[in-house]
Amino acid sequence: MSQFERPNIAALQGYSSGEQPLEKETIKLNTNENPFPVSVKVQAALMDFATADLRVYPQPTADKLRDAIAAHHGLTRDHVIVTHAGDEALRLAITTFVEPGGTLGTTEPSYSLYPVLSKIQDANMHTLALHDDWSIPSEFAQTMTEHNAQLTCLVNPHAPSGHLTPLQSIESIAKNISGVLLVDEAYIDFVDPDLAYSSKALINAQDNVLVLRTFSKGYSLAGLRLGYLLGDPELIKPMLEKTRDSYNVDGISQALGLAAISDQDYAKDTWRQVREQRQVLGDALVALGFSCPHSEANFLLATTPEEIDAEGLYEALKAKGILVRFFPTPRLKDKLRITIGTAEQNEKLIASIRQLITR
Amino acid sequence: MSQFERPNIAALQGYSSGEQPLEKETIKLNTNENPFPVSVKVQAALMDFATADLRVYPQPTADKLRDAIAAHHGLTRDHVIVTHAGDEALRLAITTFVEPGGTLGTTEPSYSLYPVLSKIQDANMHTLALHDDWSIPSEFAQTMTEHNAQLTCLVNPHAPSGHLTPLQSIESIAKNISGVLLVDEAYIDFVDPDLAYSSKALINAQDNVLVLRTFSKGYSLAGLRLGYLLGDPELIKPMLEKTRDSYNVDGISQALGLAAISDQDYAKDTWRQVREQRQVLGDALVALGFSCPHSEANFLLATTPEEIDAEGLYEALKAKGILVRFFPTPRLKDKLRITIGTAEQNEKLIASIRQLITR
Repeated sequence: MSQFERPNIAALQGYSSGEQPLEKETIKLNTNENPFPVSVKVQAALMDFATADLRVYPQPTADKLRDAIAAHHGLTRDHVIVTHAGDEALRLAITTFVEPGGTLGTTEPSYSLYPVLSKIQDANMHTLALHDDWSIPSEFAQTMTEHNAQLTCLVNPHAPSGHLTPLQSIESIAKNISGVLLVDEAYIDFVDPDLAYSSKALINAQDNVLVLRTFSKGYSLAGLRLGYLLGDPELIKPMLEKTRDSYNVDGISQALGLAAISDQDYAKDTWRQVREQRQVLGDALVALGFSCPHSEANFLLATTPEEIDAEGLYEALKAKGILVRFFPTPRLKDKLRITIGTAEQNEKLIASIRQLITR
Repeated sequence: MSQFERPNIAALQGYSSGEQPLEKETIKLNTNENPFPVSVKVQAALMDFATADLRVYPQPTADKLRDAIAAHHGLTRDHVIVTHAGDEALRLAITTFVEPGGTLGTTEPSYSLYPVLSKIQDANMHTLALHDDWSIPSEFAQTMTEHNAQLTCLVNPHAPSGHLTPLQSIESIAKNISGVLLVDEAYIDFVDPDLAYSSKALINAQDNVLVLRTFSKGYSLAGLRLGYLLGDPELIKPMLEKTRDSYNVDGISQALGLAAISDQDYAKDTWRQVREQRQVLGDALVALGFSCPHSEANFLLATTPEEIDAEGLYEALKAKGILVRFFPTPRLKDKLRITIGTAEQNEKLIASIRQLITR
């Protein structure tokens, strides 16, 4: 350890991301990527990108992309800040709204990056345990307010369970919370459209709500690092003008993001296929003795049959070239989080699990 | 202003970047971009980029690029962290080494982003004025140590003057300073190679030195947002494993950075041309009555002739479609910072200045 490192950084356990195997033949169901490739329009935008534009600084605030995002959501440019993936969006919200020594609130379990970002800011975390069915306890907003959470983060649909909290409940939490509520909608694209979940309605109803979106999952662009925040212009402004790195979104990302969000037909078709496969995979896991709560995301949180050790199954699948995610924490250690793959990938996964647990 | 914004953020004046004109015909000599396009090998890497790789997360620590950078400098992978441009590198150094309430040191004048990043971290700035010839006062290290600067940032060659502090002086400052010394070498590629300035020697001599490099200037990649830090592995490690965003460098940037650093012949040729044009432009400005201290960077800090108002000249050039940089601060308000352009751009600039100041 360097003598120069701050004590809170020295004490910090860094975020551990899911494995990124170098072997291309690995079936990768561990980091919730979209199993379908990018749109051909994104490919075309990459091929058409004028390399002369690499020489000069990009438009600092990605305004063309902000306009396209605003139009997509029925909001205005001032409601939008484009970020270097969701990670930057979370960091900006924390550095803008949470004091060193202040409090960041969330549920338990939740995204394991939150405590890392909180410690970097010298802030404290306050968490409230979710119910057994992964729903949010009714006292959540009151608890966060009592602990003076300046920012509270909710992942909706929740990770790693896939549980969707209805819009009305989120609105009610926002209404009853004293700080900013950030709703991390990384997986919202995979929600059944019949549920008519509307981020626009949320933003328009509450001036203390930030909605986080990413191109990583819904638009098959995890490799690009592109995301955005929606919110009341007064919430967006300090991040846009002050806490953001000066040129936070590179020129290629701006062009590819524009192509991606403009091809809704393609994206929606991938989301529909993921929902179909979510049902197929869930049914197959239940038939093998797993329990699988309903998920509105592009993954399932499957509890292994009682006699099957989840970590052992994770290791055995890995040995067969199939990566899923295992979290060694009290509430998750009997479960696997499985990203929805293509039909072929899911069939291979089920065949491997069947073979492993019935021998 | 939002009621939720932290008071230090509300009080903060954000960084103002140089203008990015939308008109392609503008002669842009205001933000120190390389006037020459990217290498054809970078173009080829962009065309060859497998769009299938956009679907999945990038290699989190950009290890192939780290290896290439390490080889280029004669250091090891552990001496290198790749960042989302120099901005991220500065932010990581501050969040890793400077406590809220702690002190960040630099010279006056220096890069105007430092005070912004410092305030976001709730840290204080301590600055020491440079001599009139832009050299660093001999008491610099002692002053920074007396003020407990946990991190001190020096731009070398200095911006906005282009003054190069010799390696031995930098080493001596590092030796006599109690905290971390970050040497921002954004413009080092344009230094005369006969001076044999060696970042490797600096890193090997001192375990408290971070060297910042960027692809934005030397490799004509300002649009990409790619940079790196070199330093003792113990200094690099907490940034790599803890304070960095989990996937801070996208897949395309990793591929293009690798192509750029591998084509040293092309890059060096652009640097040589910039040095030649620096001489030509400097001589022409002096002939017009400007004073121009020797610069080892890709810009000149030109003091206007006594009867010519610098801001007025900046505005008049802008009206003619030529952008240079004017800083309305006490020590700089009689000067213009002019990026070295191509021979053609520099000739047009000189012709325009001649026309404006002699009518």
